Amino acid sequence: MEQQIAAGVLRPGDRLPSVRQACASRDLSPSTVFKAYYLLESRGLVRAASRSGYFVAARPGGARLPEPQASTPQSGSQPVKIDDLIYACLGSTRARDVIPFGSAFPSPTLFPLDRLRRALVSSTRRLDPWSMAEDLPPGNLPLKREIAKRYLRQGLQVPVEEIVLTHGAMEALTLCLHAVARPGDAVVVESPTFYMALQALQRLGMHAIEVPTDIHEGIDLARLADVIERHRPKACWLMTNFQNPLGSLMPEAKKRDLVELLARHDMPLIEDDVYAELYAGNVAPLPAKAFDRRGLVLHCSSFSKCLAPGYRVGWAAPGRLTREVERLKLMTTLSGSIPVQAALAEYLQEGGYDRHLRGLRASLQAQRDSLFDAVNRLFPDGTRVLHPAGGYFVWVELPAGVDAMALHSAAMTERISLAPGPMFSARGAFRHHIRLTCGQPWDDSREHAMRTLARLVNEAPRVQPSAAASI
Amino acid sequence: MEQQIAAGVLRPGDRLPSVRQACASRDLSPSTVFKAYYLLESRGLVRAASRSGYFVAARPGGARLPEPQASTPQSGSQPVKIDDLIYACLGSTRARDVIPFGSAFPSPTLFPLDRLRRALVSSTRRLDPWSMAEDLPPGNLPLKREIAKRYLRQGLQVPVEEIVLTHGAMEALTLCLHAVARPGDAVVVESPTFYMALQALQRLGMHAIEVPTDIHEGIDLARLADVIERHRPKACWLMTNFQNPLGSLMPEAKKRDLVELLARHDMPLIEDDVYAELYAGNVAPLPAKAFDRRGLVLHCSSFSKCLAPGYRVGWAAPGRLTREVERLKLMTTLSGSIPVQAALAEYLQEGGYDRHLRGLRASLQAQRDSLFDAVNRLFPDGTRVLHPAGGYFVWVELPAGVDAMALHSAAMTERISLAPGPMFSARGAFRHHIRLTCGQPWDDSREHAMRTLARLVNEAPRVQPSAAASI
Repeated sequence: MEQQIAAGVLRPGDRLPSVRQACASRDLSPSTVFKAYYLLESRGLVRAASRSGYFVAARPGGARLPEPQASTPQSGSQPVKIDDLIYACLGSTRARDVIPFGSAFPSPTLFPLDRLRRALVSSTRRLDPWSMAEDLPPGNLPLKREIAKRYLRQGLQVPVEEIVLTHGAMEALTLCLHAVARPGDAVVVESPTFYMALQALQRLGMHAIEVPTDIHEGIDLARLADVIERHRPKACWLMTNFQNPLGSLMPEAKKRDLVELLARHDMPLIEDDVYAELYAGNVAPLPAKAFDRRGLVLHCSSFSKCLAPGYRVGWAAPGRLTREVERLKLMTTLSGSIPVQAALAEYLQEGGYDRHLRGLRASLQAQRDSLFDAVNRLFPDGTRVLHPAGGYFVWVELPAGVDAMALHSAAMTERISLAPGPMFSARGAFRHHIRLTCGQPWDDSREHAMRTLARLVNEAPRVQPSAAASI
Repeated sequence: MEQQIAAGVLRPGDRLPSVRQACASRDLSPSTVFKAYYLLESRGLVRAASRSGYFVAARPGGARLPEPQASTPQSGSQPVKIDDLIYACLGSTRARDVIPFGSAFPSPTLFPLDRLRRALVSSTRRLDPWSMAEDLPPGNLPLKREIAKRYLRQGLQVPVEEIVLTHGAMEALTLCLHAVARPGDAVVVESPTFYMALQALQRLGMHAIEVPTDIHEGIDLARLADVIERHRPKACWLMTNFQNPLGSLMPEAKKRDLVELLARHDMPLIEDDVYAELYAGNVAPLPAKAFDRRGLVLHCSSFSKCLAPGYRVGWAAPGRLTREVERLKLMTTLSGSIPVQAALAEYLQEGGYDRHLRGLRASLQAQRDSLFDAVNRLFPDGTRVLHPAGGYFVWVELPAGVDAMALHSAAMTERISLAPGPMFSARGAFRHHIRLTCGQPWDDSREHAMRTLARLVNEAPRVQPSAAASI
């Protein structure tokens, strides 16, 4: 097997034969097979996924391609006008025959849709008609309790009353943004940053300050401190766990330092934490909110990326701005959809969510490894690629001069979507970067699509990098 | 029966014995009973509700109390700061032991919750997992088709592509508002106006211009023309059908004139039309959108008031601003909840919605008559009350000097909610007005609560009307 891995017959993300299969096909005892797999694991060649077996591991250190460079934007706030670009890119990725490397969602086949449906059936059967009217504004109490319990298991004391249920994390984030800043105010974001943050800033007429962001450890705190002193932004909007698009994970100590820095300036942090459950390894990362003693962290998450896409149920835990966010919620969309909230509450109460998450994490780990490996195998020299710490995005820096927008157009004619780098910057930066989504199990069509993409990158005209192409 | 009605034994909203019961109890032939009921109907004493029997009619003309006076605000735009008041009033009405005369929702028992649940079950069973991701942004297509079909039956050509599904009408309205105006801009509203319109204006930092509004026929067009000339507002936000809180219905010819007036000034109309299905009589009123040839009417509605409260499914048909509203939707909450959208599509496809609506309209008509009658019987001289043309609100002008806010507080100590008039004005007007909700079938507890309210009005200190109390 070591030879097969070395020869590329078994590739990162591929599953090894089960112990039983290996015993049968090679006439070995289970203990011998276990020993061999442990040995492969100790050499870093494979990794065990709880209850899912063994997979060939990606070896970021030994990868052919180097990592992308960190961005170093000059500090300065600017109005956001990115809407057209994002809308055009998102609109192009929806047809079913498109290989969705540009999608923001993992495959729906990874989710327990049948069990959710059963929960929907049984919860609506038991739903008191009056709750249809009464649960408006506060939202479904049992669901809020389940969310609070999950916080508690991580050691976070988030009272049920602090949880504001929303239509997905996106509504939670925009309500929190509305609660902390006014039109014309500046808000700190990462570089690159999640495009929906930029859209929210644009919609509310706010300015963005992009701060240099380490590709592994998140926003640069020294530069952040400097920006705070010089530009007096009203808040930060950051993704501390498995940042979109980098897939980076801010270390715990740095989260603590971040919260302390912000506390010194009494500055709120909007923490977009929708990918936290999609970690690698065995331990869930803490959010920055875990270190918040002053109610400054407005923590936002949802079930859209880890349990129930399409249900659109998210929440905010907005600290000392809870009442403000609750009121904005009431004034904007009044309340959430009661049947889907009740269904999620029932699903969570029944148990089984953690088992689902273990399986989802194993699938995503394999899919990350497969995509990372494919970029390494297939893309031309001069490409740089980052092995993500979690989530389902892979950030790729194309060879200098390859225009990501042109590549996006060329790929669409081949029925392949991708997210071009300029979507992730208010400055139009990342012109030769792309974000690829590994939300689907790897298969021949994906392998084929990656070969096509690699060919398009190879064939792409190399334009002279302009000033705007700087990162 | 005529005597019983005259003596108040049978009261407005009460159901007459069925023809079969009347035959049995009085030993008459069905044709004799029918003849008697026709006679009562021709005298205006009772009215037939299709498939629901005969009810004692309210006689607005013959009512003891006069109608409220129309408001005559001086034109002028002003910033909106009404949030605290509204939030306090809404928050107080939620406990189940409170008689909800202040509620914004009719009783959930009036809705086909079982059939909706079955539609939810069967639609989620058939739901393609991929639709969970693909139906995001555009929303469930079959539901949009059903909505377009209902427009078509009224003679309105609204293409499926113009329909933007939202989290209830509230989101539709705020997105439309966002699409037509910017912070600091002025928007025309009725006087009194629906408090959520004021909240939306406040949240987006816009100004309100309250325009005099006829209690039967809606906004005064001459004054509106004057306001447009003098103040150049960016849009109007009006409820043309069964206005909240008046319950008034703008006549069709006036709607046509309104649309023409706005077209001359190229001014968008946000038409909040959530009560249109709750009409009296046999013909659904047309929205102003029916007369719009230039795409200036942004028509907003929902299923929350007529079919599925708690599902939070609404829509906008924003005319020529459709793409703009669609983008704002994407930027704000991304998409609607797919399972509940699919359930409503299935319910509508199955048929039966119109049958449900007929029953709902009959119930609400009886409840309106009962509440109107109770105010007439029980409230002291000096009270004025408006018989609503549809919907489920009754607008009451209390005797001069009775403070609606104080009455609201006193009523809450008796576990009765109501909506005090100042909620419906950015100027703090309507200080001695209240809106009562007849969303529940009339019963002894409601009769008792109305007696309590009447006593509280009687006992209320009469304060000297101040300038702010003007309407």
